[in-house]
Order: sequence, then C-alpha cells, then structure tokens
Amino acid sequence: MPIDAADTHTVEVGYDELCGALQSRDLQALWSMQTRLMPETPAPATLPWLWKWSTVFPLAQRAGEIVTIERGGDRRVLAFANPGLGGLPYTSTTLWGALQYLGPGESAPAHRHTPSAIRFVMKGKGVYTTVDGDACEMEPGDLILTPQWTWHDHNNYGEEPMVWFDGLDLPLVATLESIFFENHPQDNQPVRGHNLSQRLVTSAPGLVEAGAASSATYSPLLRYPYADTSRALERLHAETGETLVSVAYVNPLTGGPAIPTFACQMSRLTPSERTTTVRKTGSSIYVVLHGSGCSVIDGQRFDWATGDVFVTPSWSSVDHQAKEPSDLFVISDQPVLEALHLHRTETLGQHQPVTTTFAPV
Amino acid sequence: MPIDAADTHTVEVGYDELCGALQSRDLQALWSMQTRLMPETPAPATLPWLWKWSTVFPLAQRAGEIVTIERGGDRRVLAFANPGLGGLPYTSTTLWGALQYLGPGESAPAHRHTPSAIRFVMKGKGVYTTVDGDACEMEPGDLILTPQWTWHDHNNYGEEPMVWFDGLDLPLVATLESIFFENHPQDNQPVRGHNLSQRLVTSAPGLVEAGAASSATYSPLLRYPYADTSRALERLHAETGETLVSVAYVNPLTGGPAIPTFACQMSRLTPSERTTTVRKTGSSIYVVLHGSGCSVIDGQRFDWATGDVFVTPSWSSVDHQAKEPSDLFVISDQPVLEALHLHRTETLGQHQPVTTTFAPV
Amino acid sequence: MPIDAADTHTVEVGYDELCGALQSRDLQALWSMQTRLMPETPAPATLPWLWKWSTVFPLAQRAGEIVTIERGGDRRVLAFANPGLGGLPYTSTTLWGALQYLGPGESAPAHRHTPSAIRFVMKGKGVYTTVDGDACEMEPGDLILTPQWTWHDHNNYGEEPMVWFDGLDLPLVATLESIFFENHPQDNQPVRGHNLSQRLVTSAPGLVEAGAASSATYSPLLRYPYADTSRALERLHAETGETLVSVAYVNPLTGGPAIPTFACQMSRLTPSERTTTVRKTGSSIYVVLHGSGCSVIDGQRFDWATGDVFVTPSWSSVDHQAKEPSDLFVISDQPVLEALHLHRTETLGQHQPVTTTFAPV
Amino acid sequence: MPIDAADTHTVEVGYDELCGALQSRDLQALWSMQTRLMPETPAPATLPWLWKWSTVFPLAQRAGEIVTIERGGDRRVLAFANPGLGGLPYTSTTLWGALQYLGPGESAPAHRHTPSAIRFVMKGKGVYTTVDGDACEMEPGDLILTPQWTWHDHNNYGEEPMVWFDGLDLPLVATLESIFFENHPQDNQPVRGHNLSQRLVTSAPGLVEAGAASSATYSPLLRYPYADTSRALERLHAETGETLVSVAYVNPLTGGPAIPTFACQMSRLTPSERTTTVRKTGSSIYVVLHGSGCSVIDGQRFDWATGDVFVTPSWSSVDHQAKEPSDLFVISDQPVLEALHLHRTETLGQHQPVTTTFAPV
Repeated sequence: MPIDAADTHTVEVGYDELCGALQSRDLQALWSMQTRLMPETPAPATLPWLWKWSTVFPLAQRAGEIVTIERGGDRRVLAFANPGLGGLPYTSTTLWGALQYLGPGESAPAHRHTPSAIRFVMKGKGVYTTVDGDACEMEPGDLILTPQWTWHDHNNYGEEPMVWFDGLDLPLVATLESIFFENHPQDNQPVRGHNLSQRLVTSAPGLVEAGAASSATYSPLLRYPYADTSRALERLHAETGETLVSVAYVNPLTGGPAIPTFACQMSRLTPSERTTTVRKTGSSIYVVLHGSGCSVIDGQRFDWATGDVFVTPSWSSVDHQAKEPSDLFVISDQPVLEALHLHRTETLGQHQPVTTTFAPV
Repeated sequence: MPIDAADTHTVEVGYDELCGALQSRDLQALWSMQTRLMPETPAPATLPWLWKWSTVFPLAQRAGEIVTIERGGDRRVLAFANPGLGGLPYTSTTLWGALQYLGPGESAPAHRHTPSAIRFVMKGKGVYTTVDGDACEMEPGDLILTPQWTWHDHNNYGEEPMVWFDGLDLPLVATLESIFFENHPQDNQPVRGHNLSQRLVTSAPGLVEAGAASSATYSPLLRYPYADTSRALERLHAETGETLVSVAYVNPLTGGPAIPTFACQMSRLTPSERTTTVRKTGSSIYVVLHGSGCSVIDGQRFDWATGDVFVTPSWSSVDHQAKEPSDLFVISDQPVLEALHLHRTETLGQHQPVTTTFAPV
Repeated sequence: MPIDAADTHTVEVGYDELCGALQSRDLQALWSMQTRLMPETPAPATLPWLWKWSTVFPLAQRAGEIVTIERGGDRRVLAFANPGLGGLPYTSTTLWGALQYLGPGESAPAHRHTPSAIRFVMKGKGVYTTVDGDACEMEPGDLILTPQWTWHDHNNYGEEPMVWFDGLDLPLVATLESIFFENHPQDNQPVRGHNLSQRLVTSAPGLVEAGAASSATYSPLLRYPYADTSRALERLHAETGETLVSVAYVNPLTGGPAIPTFACQMSRLTPSERTTTVRKTGSSIYVVLHGSGCSVIDGQRFDWATGDVFVTPSWSSVDHQAKEPSDLFVISDQPVLEALHLHRTETLGQHQPVTTTFAPV
Repeated sequence: MPIDAADTHTVEVGYDELCGALQSRDLQALWSMQTRLMPETPAPATLPWLWKWSTVFPLAQRAGEIVTIERGGDRRVLAFANPGLGGLPYTSTTLWGALQYLGPGESAPAHRHTPSAIRFVMKGKGVYTTVDGDACEMEPGDLILTPQWTWHDHNNYGEEPMVWFDGLDLPLVATLESIFFENHPQDNQPVRGHNLSQRLVTSAPGLVEAGAASSATYSPLLRYPYADTSRALERLHAETGETLVSVAYVNPLTGGPAIPTFACQMSRLTPSERTTTVRKTGSSIYVVLHGSGCSVIDGQRFDWATGDVFVTPSWSSVDHQAKEPSDLFVISDQPVLEALHLHRTETLGQHQPVTTTFAPV
C-alpha cells in the first residue's frame, strides 16, 4: 500500500488545539523550540563548580567510620554531583568524578562494568588495585587504569586510609544505554603478579618490548607512576620555560589516549601571570594534586588548593594562575568529541574580565 | 602544601546527618544507588513506541495550513517524542526522529549546525535540498544527507506538499554540549548544480572516479536514490531467499557509515514467519516506507503500516513479521557504540513469547 | 669486550690496494658510486616499451596449438619482458604483465601463491575463473581478481579461445623474497556458486549488504564487469566533458585499492588534443581494450591500437592522444609508493616536445 | 575497432622457432620457468653472510687516512655487499648496511634523499648528526634517525674518529625507482638546538607532551640513547628471565616502527642454550654492539664478536647462542612485509642440526 492511500482523513483545528493534539500524541513542534534546541553556541547544563578538599575529605573520613564496604554497597564513593544536572550524580553530562575512601585492611570486592574508570591517588599508601590479575600498586599522584569490562578490586593492606579520585565515562555510557555490570565470583580475584603491565613498555619512550601487540580497546600499560609524570613535567618546564606544561597519558602502543573515551592529563602550573584564556567543546574535571591558585571560568573566579576538584563546562572560557607550583590532574571527554568531529577550540587571549568569585558551600 | 597538611578538621555526625551534609555540599553517596547506576544489563529510559501515520500526517497537514515557515521558526517539524524521556523532544537518548512537512512553493531557509541529519522522503515530489551548493532532488524512498556543519535549505518547487522523515544525532550532540548553529546570510544558498555528488561515485560499486579523495568526516555521496536501494534489496532477496534482507548506506570512499554518528539502513521484509529475535545495545528508529506487519519488542507487539514510525530501545529483544512485502528504513546509533567498544549483540532464537499489544493513542 | 679492545691491527696500503682489499672482503666504497646510487631524480632501469597485439596474439595462438597445459607447466602465458631489466621476465621492477591464452575445453589447474594477480579479459567468452570456490564469469573488459594466496583455476567451457592480460606484483614480491606457491590437491577446486562476490556489494555505490565485514587484505568483490565500468566512464565523460576520464577499481568496503599492492584503473580517451603531460614515481602498464592513438613518454611517441600493451617507467613524462574513442586499462604500483610515502607527482603542462617515435620489433 | 578485427595473420612455426620468435619480441614463456619464478617457499638470492670487525675496521681506518670527505664523495662509507646479489652494493634485496667513518674535525656535508636511514653508533664520541636543524648527539649504542627527505649532516667536533653502522632502505627504494637526492645549499645546515626531539616524548613511556601531533611519516623522536635501551633490556631480562630479550624502537606517538620502511630492534643475549630456531619472511642485518657468540643460519654456524655484522636471508632458519652477555642491534624489512600482508613466521623448535661453519675471508 503506497503512502498516499493512507491519507484517510483531515483535521480542522486551530493553533491551540493543534498544540494540544500534538502533545497528547507524543509529538513536539520544533518551531516552538528551535532556538533552544539549536543555540548558536553550546548552552551547557553543566555548571562550573568547585568542591573543597577541606569540606569533602572530612565527610569521606566520617563515611569511612560509619559506612561499611560489602557486596550490595561495594564502594565507599562520594560523587561530585554538578548542581546544573537536576540531581543526577554526574560531574558533567559525560564525566563522573568522585572521591573514593578505602580504610586500612579494607577491600572493595572485584567486579567489572562497561564504563571505563581511572583512579588518581590523592592520599595514602599501602593499596593496590588488581586489574585482570595485575596488582597495580598505588601511591599519591599515580594513575591506575581499570578499562572497560576489566575485573578490578581495591585492597588496602596498609595502616592508613587511602583516598583517590575516580574518573569514569559513566554518564556517557548511561546516555548510550549500554551499561553492563558483573560481580566476580570471588571477593578478590587471583593475583598473577604486581605491576606486570609496566614490563611491556620497558623504561623509555620509543622503546617497547619487541612483538608487543596492542589491544585495540585500551592501553596495555595500567599504571603510570607519579615519579615518571613529575620528571616529564619538570623536563618540559625546563626546556620550554612555559608557565603551563602538560603531559598526556597515552597508550604507548598506539599513541592514542590511555582510555579511549576520555583523556587524562597532568598539568604543572608555575606562579606567573594568568594563562591565555581558551575555550573548547567538551567538559573537564580538574583535581589539584598539590599547590594553590585560581582559575577563571566564564568570568567567574575559582580559588583552589590541594585536594580541591573543579569542573569546566563545554565552551566555557578558561584560564589559570598559580600562587605556588601546582600539579593539576585533568580528565576530559575530548577523545569522544574528536572521534565524532565535534571538537572545536578557540583562543581568547589574555586578561579576560573577571566578574564574580565562586563561593563554595 | 601536601594533601596531608590540608586535613584540618573532622566531622562527628551520624548516618542521617552525613547524608544531609553530603547533599548540601553537592555530593552523592554511591553506596545508596550503585545497583541503579550500574545495572547488570542496560535499563533504558527510552520506551519502545510507535506513531501512526494516520495520526501524525493529518496533524502535519494541519500545521502546513496554519504554521508558516520563516526565520525564527525555520522548519515545520513534528518530533517523535519518546514518552520515557521526561518531556524531551527526542525519540531515544541518542536519536532525533521527526516528520517534516514542506508545502508547494515553500522554502525552508538555509542554515547549518553541528548535529548531522538525514532526510528520508516519505511522500511528495518536486523538492530539492541544497547541500553546500549541490541541489539534491528528492523522491519517495530517497535518502539525502545533510552532514555536520553543511549548509542546507529545502525547496518545494512543485505543486504538492512533501513529507519526509528527519533523522538526527541531536540528542547525542546535546549531551556532548557541542551544538553550534548558524543561519546562512541568504535565505537560499547559491546552487552550483543538481545531484553533483553522484558524479564522484560513478555507477557501480567498486568503481570510483580515479583520484577522488574522501572527506574524513562524511560521505561525498549526498543522495541515495530509492531506485538503487530497491534494486539492491531485490537482488539480495533473489540471491539469498531470506525473509529479511538489509542494505547499509555507506560512504563509498571508505566503506564506513554515510553519517559517522548513526547508521542508515533499509530492510525489506517478505511475508513469512517472525524473524529470529535479536537484541543489541543502542536504539533504532524504523520508518515504514510501505507495507504492513508487526514487530515484537520485549514481548510487546507493535502493528505497523505504511508511514508509521517506531523505536526500539537499547538491549530490547526485537523481531519482525510482514503481512505484505514491506520496506523499512532504519537509523541507529550503532557506529557510536562500535567506536566506543560498547556494541554488543545477542541472538535469542525464534518464537519468543508475545505478552501484550501496543495500543497507540 | 668493548669495541675498542677489538682494534688489533692496522693496514698500511695505498688507494688501489685498499680498493682491492675492499672488494675481496665483500665491501664496496660508497664514495665511488654515490651519484649513481643516489641520483637527483629517479634513473629507472625500466624502459618505456610497447608490444603490438598484431605481433603477440599470433604467437600466443601458435603456443595454443603446440604447448599443452598441465601440471608443471600450468599456464600458457607470454610475459611482457622489459628489455631494460637484463633478461628478467618482468614488465617493470614491480609489475608483471603477460598475455594468457586458454583454448576451448582447456582448464588451467588450481593453485595459489603469495603474489596477487588480476585478469583483464581482452578477447573471447565462455570462461570462468574460480577464486576460492566462486566461479567468476569472464567477458571482454571484465576485471577478475585473484588476490594473494587465494585458490584459483581457469576453465574454458566455451568454443573459442580466450585471451586475457595477467597483471601481478610478482617482481615486487620476488624482491621481498616472499614467494610461496602451492598446488591445489584437485585440478579444479569445488565451485560454491557463480559470481557470488557481487552479492555483497548489491547494485549501486554507497549500498552494501548490511553487516558485510571487509577483509583487511583484499576486496570482497572479485568481478568487475565491463558493462559497469563503461557506464561509469560514459557518465563521467558526460558530466565533466574531459578528454580523459578514469575510474579506479576499489574495495567497496574500504574505498582502498581492489588489490593492496597495485592500483587498477580504466581510462577513456576521447579524440582531442594531447592530454596534459604529467610524471609520477612508479611504473604503469597500459592495456588498450579498444581504440587507437598515441602516448608520448619522455619525448618518445608510442602509437598504439586495440590489444597493444605498453609500459611507462617511474618519473617519465607521459601524455596521451586518441585517434578514436579508446579505453585503456592501467595497473600501477602507486599504492605501494603511497604506503611508503614515496609517491610524488608533477604536472609539466601541455605541448611537451616529441623527439622520436618508438618502432616495435 | 574491436580486438577481433585485429587478428590479421597467423604464424606456423615449430616449438624452437616459437621460442626464438618470443625472445626476439621481448616476450618470455612462463611455462619454461614457472617453478623457478614461483618456488614453493622463498628462494632468496641474499646469502647468509658475516663481516668481521677485525677485518672491516682497519680498512675503514685506512680509508680515513687516504680518502677525503667532500662534495661529490660526501660520505666515507663501506657497504656490506652481499655476495649473492651479483655485485650490487646491498646487504639484502631490501636493506643497505654499511660502516661509516668520520675522523676528528671532519664534517659530512648536508643533503637529503628519499631513502630513509638510521645511524647506530659503534665507536667514538664527540659527534652530532643534525637532522632538520636538530643536532643529535651520538654515543656508542645510540640510535639516530635520519628519516626520508630530512636534511642531515654529520659533524665530528671531538678528537677521535667515530664509526657507526648505516642502515637504509635504499635497495627497496631503488627497486621502486623512486630515489630523489638533493644537496643542501650550505655544507652544514643551521642548528636550531641539541637533542630537541626528546622534548616531545618527555621521560617515560605512556607520557607525551599534551597536544603533540604525530607526523604520519616518521617518528618525531630522532635520538634513542643507549642508556635507555640498556635499562629497558635489563628490566625485561630481570622480569622474564629469558635468554633472549628484545626491545623495538618505535614512534612514541603511534606505536609504529620508528622508520616506516624497516624495523629497528636491540636484542640482549645471555649465555645459555641455543635459542629456539625460527624463520620468517624478510631479511635482517645484525650488528654486534658488544659480546660474542654464534648464530646458526640454515644449518651454517656463524661465530661473531664485538663489531661484527651479519645478515639473515628471508625464510632462513635462525637461532643464537651467546658466550658472554651480548647486545645485538638488528634492522629488518618486516614493516614492509606486514603492510603488504607478506609477513609469515614459523617456529622450528630447538636443536636444529648444524652442518657447516662460516669462514669469513
């Protein structure tokens, strides 16, 4: 039956009735919302926001005292929930940032999920995360990958609590309605060895174990020690003299991002003038490993210090200024935007006006 | 200042107070929602749904009579709004489906935007869509691409209205907070020629103009005539004898999807038994070009006929059965899921139980 | 033992003695040959050359009468041996061109090898080449692929001889010392069906069977009928009005060359002025499917007619002029040069001087 | 004119006359040489061979005394000429290996060419190679890249001669008839800085300067210090306990080979049993940086010591045994074979018979 034969009746209604008829039939008129749907430049729901370590850590500590870790609960995690996202526990529309707290002797049981995660250690020692049998030791400033669908459990064999930053692509995978989750049959998966993944990449850039083949999906290197990162930043700063130097954590066998769905970087800021203001599509979460300073996001000034976490929305103008030498760990959804040809960036120059100062709760 | 020095105070609160303190500081406790956040298999908000042509077309026709097209309004479009998405005008969390109605003599002015679109013609003739200067003629069953950031305007020089299906990645780009939009300085952009893009790909698969280089971003072929699609399906059916045969619209210079962010396919169903039930991650929108039959989605039966539109959510079980020879055009977010390594599929076999029948409004 | 400790003696010889000592120890002094080894522009051994159909075909015919096809001999093939290559049976340093003759009722037994081959039919009918079980019918102007390590046998079930052009990457694979060869256990491999590969790519560019996955190695399409090629050229000529139009045979699932190690193209020349003279790295073999005209190669004029074959060396200046509408099939090593970043091209403009005329034997 | 009309005459000759007629017309009959052209497994012209440092170095030293470096001569280089290649100055059909000798105060003038080269330092200090303005310091065991078409000159500002191994893809590029060569207008190109390329890749694998984009053509890292390589090998050996450990020099931004046309590796052999015998397509050149031992190539034993160079042909069976801890630098054409899908490998197990011992001149 061709479509024409299906035209069986007509409707004779006025504009208001038409609108009502549309609504009741799960239809929406584009003409009433085009500008809102298609703004000239991104109009993010994500708000620029900052969480103070001095606020968050004591709460995490208290949670450590009164909330146990066990199957069903599984992880003692405080999510940085962006107040622009209507109550969702997400830091931006694509990124999940959270603080995880693991007390001495505790173990967060093994599971796996399709969202990918990174762990960036903020405080503590004596913990390892086992990733598909490889026990990755964790120290402050270290980056540990737990890529998509890899088994992982966290184990504190030391005598003090550990706090790390969890970064996940969970909001994006939730939007893609593709979350799968599975508990491991054992609380702790068997350990094949410690820091095994570092073998593959030997000890210098440009050198890999001969015959090492890359997983298409994620980096074979699972642990990026802070000592290496710090040395790299020091070298870059020494050679370029720049106020802001950054290294990207990459898959050493492909040069692509360590996790395919979000970028991980570490930036080192030296006290000086405000950096050039830039904006780009996509959101970023910053974790202050140490130091203090401020960032200006869309004209609003955010003062930060060691342990603070803040988020910059898509297309917001951003610059930074350190009061003391500072290391900022950053994750962003840039790889996804690049893959979909949606990455844009613009340089706005220096001395952009500052209009307000963010006052955290 | 190292992080330890920042631990300046402790909190001594009970569980309820802790929860309150978290909430007031834009923090959310994962332990209270882990199972909801990380279900064992996808728990989509997107509902399976169907819109009847006999309902939608008369409303579009009426809109054609009382809603003008002009700058500000721009397009006479009725969006298929999935009732599971809380009032958003989206068909699924990643895909936008809509009916566009363009009366004789009307012209929808030129603009461009970062979301990519396809136009699948359902009814009418005498219209062309100009895409970056290439006037692509439109007839029923034709697929026209207006890829990301290409200028496009629609022009009805004929004597009857045209109705087409609009498919966009708008919800995904909205989530990525990366929508840019721009009006063309002229209502109608200059036309360089008609159906120019078809030159590049000559007339048979496996043959391209020597030296033709592909845009990395999208297919250089902008118009896929139904005559070709129908012949391809006929041939596939003749050769395989299958109840369900499908062709994918691809970028002829790369073999990748015509639009990088969503797949376009046409399926031909021959009256026979229900097809094998399968499920996969990601959502799909089906447009019935002609024919009639039913689809069973997660055990619910949807009866469809010419001009109807329906949506299948991520990980829903789906099978089809035609009452008469039927052509169904389909878009899905599969390329995005594949790029992010989130594509999964499962075959459930035949004769899955049918529990309810969908009754559209 | 470090290298220094190994310096145990010195030599006290003059220049001539040094040269002698080098030679006897399998060493060669670069300083005596640098300019020859590293010329400013390519100094190919490959000569421009032409073989006349009126010479070659009668010899092939005679071979058909007195040379049988059987295991050991296997193929009745006359190789176009470039006289610049010191007696090697190669048409250029990378390409093998030859005429193959298969009489009525004859069958060339099944084998496979690592060099890839194409068959371009020049004359005859009633033959098919079976490639991994797919019997590809052959008619004049058709291109049949027998890619690397695919089983293939040729079968003449008709009543007349067939002559086709064989194009192989054999010289390149020989240089890479990577030739493997294997006879099939049966004279003729089992046939799964006829022209099966064409199913996959349906009937129009931009449309492929949904779910078709590409082999990374070679095109899944094995047969490119001349009717399609001719229609494509006609369309290109009609649309562009150019004297010289060319289509490339590509892998429809990737847009890359049909065979990864050499390019296949068909050019259509319309009688007019000489085309613009260009030169590029890499060699090409031309097969005149029909027509007549001339090509000027490095100032030397080559007159060609139906059935002739000629070769252009790397970096030679080349232009063409048709006396009548002419179709020229061409293979070249361009994909290899591109993969190794050695492809260069230069346009020399029109009316380059003609100094001599090639007089074939 | 169709091909049929061109069949104007026939030949009536016997077999011998036919053969003569073919030869005089630059045609060759495949049936007389198929087995030779298409052997069942590779039949390389390249011979396994070894050059003793104790023989070669004194000759290089003497050349240093009596052969000057200047335009026209340009480089004081002794090529390892494989005796199987009919007098060509190549070490295998694809690879060029040579010893270059640069005396104190000497400078080898700046030029560039399409063949790519590496320099592996064997002896000496106080030399840098400038590559497109980046002065790369050279010490024993260092690897320096001078990729395709990069300007390079070598400068000895020290007080002793330097000897390094030159590895080039010259034979392959010669076969592809694509050699271009150009002298720099100045004897020594301007120097922008020293060891600049190392900035980009910072100091640890998996960390790169954020925003660093890779050249598609070659590694941005031009200098690979031996200290790094040695540490990497030490680590691999410590972790695996293997007799033979190898690292590959890669482009840190892509994980691909440092030079796209040949692989560079360093192997460390620990005294133990003979390694497992393997064979693979493609040839390799070994340079003994230090140590001593033997390799068995197709059953022939080659004893080697510090400074020796040897070559293994395609598909030859190869194993090694060290008498003392030994580092062997190796180049091979494997990337080309892989790109063309011609790479094959086979493991033959241990204790393959040894039939002869190579006695160098």
